Amino acid sequence: MLGLKLPTDPRWVNIAEKNIEDILIDHAWCEQKAASTAISLIVSFPEYTELVTAMNELVQEEMSHFKMVHDLLKDRNIVLGRDRRDFYVVELIKFFPKGGSREVQLVHRLLYAALIEARSCERFRLLSENLKDEKLRKFYRKLMISEANHYTMFLGFARKYHDEKIVNEKWSELLDYEAKILKSFEKGESVHG
Amino acid sequence: MLGLKLPTDPRWVNIAEKNIEDILIDHAWCEQKAASTAISLIVSFPEYTELVTAMNELVQEEMSHFKMVHDLLKDRNIVLGRDRRDFYVVELIKFFPKGGSREVQLVHRLLYAALIEARSCERFRLLSENLKDEKLRKFYRKLMISEANHYTMFLGFARKYHDEKIVNEKWSELLDYEAKILKSFEKGESVHG
Repeated sequence: MLGLKLPTDPRWVNIAEKNIEDILIDHAWCEQKAASTAISLIVSFPEYTELVTAMNELVQEEMSHFKMVHDLLKDRNIVLGRDRRDFYVVELIKFFPKGGSREVQLVHRLLYAALIEARSCERFRLLSENLKDEKLRKFYRKLMISEANHYTMFLGFARKYHDEKIVNEKWSELLDYEAKILKSFEKGESVHG
Repeated sequence: MLGLKLPTDPRWVNIAEKNIEDILIDHAWCEQKAASTAISLIVSFPEYTELVTAMNELVQEEMSHFKMVHDLLKDRNIVLGRDRRDFYVVELIKFFPKGGSREVQLVHRLLYAALIEARSCERFRLLSENLKDEKLRKFYRKLMISEANHYTMFLGFARKYHDEKIVNEKWSELLDYEAKILKSFEKGESVHG
């Protein structure tokens, strides 16, 4: 349903489980970055009123997730560590050429956001199905559903604001590219690593 | 109670009322910038757990205010315009020298935030007392109370995380500087202008 062309290597879950504190810290920063991305879309495209309304809601939802992860860290007496670069995202957003009309730039940013949500959704599903800790399994099941909704929303906005056929082509090419990035990565103790 | 050394020129309210659409758009961006500042404090100082918790709540509150202002714009069929530079803030954050320990950098950022909230609070009080539109008067009264709470929170964190005597001295110097900035400005159709 998410369209991803390469499923995550099942060994990732084992690495994640062994490094669950690193995963939680990285996850907190993923939520913060999702909130910042939504704010950035508001700042860059304020005249898209429906998008602004949706991004505003999204900021609040992502920060409520940040709080949930931060609370989990506090329960474990873990202090939130510094953010690390998300090389997956750094590589991903190199795909579309810079420039073009504002509308095309918006579409590219919406497709990047949709893909990051889709991959996060897939990873959270793996955590929700495989972690031994029941509380965490339920937690990731809940967040998996949110990520799926965000993925649908971003893709929907892209198709709404631009020619649907072109959007679908771009989306398909981005999915191919994402599979290549993922393949090139060592499995690591991060949400997208 | 806010400690501001220079009250706003009463003529500002008249200019604001005549340009209420510009004020609302500028106000929406003030809320967005307040949310972004709170996120930035989380990113820069993640190990201050209590601050992170408070800033997370603040992001959500500021974005709920952004929504309130955006809804007012939608009611008036106004599309949110692009953000403009807030020269008041640009000048304000030149005051403290760059560098110093992380703790001192944190204190400086908290004091800037406290002062921006204090000045916004004063401006919103003027709007809440003087606008002819009753709905807007009530709206600004509600937001004025929020800004006062944020001002208290930021100043409280500064005093909590650093020597209180030094913080009080820095605060007093910043208040003097802010009065000078404000005096040098033309009255304009923005929240801090």
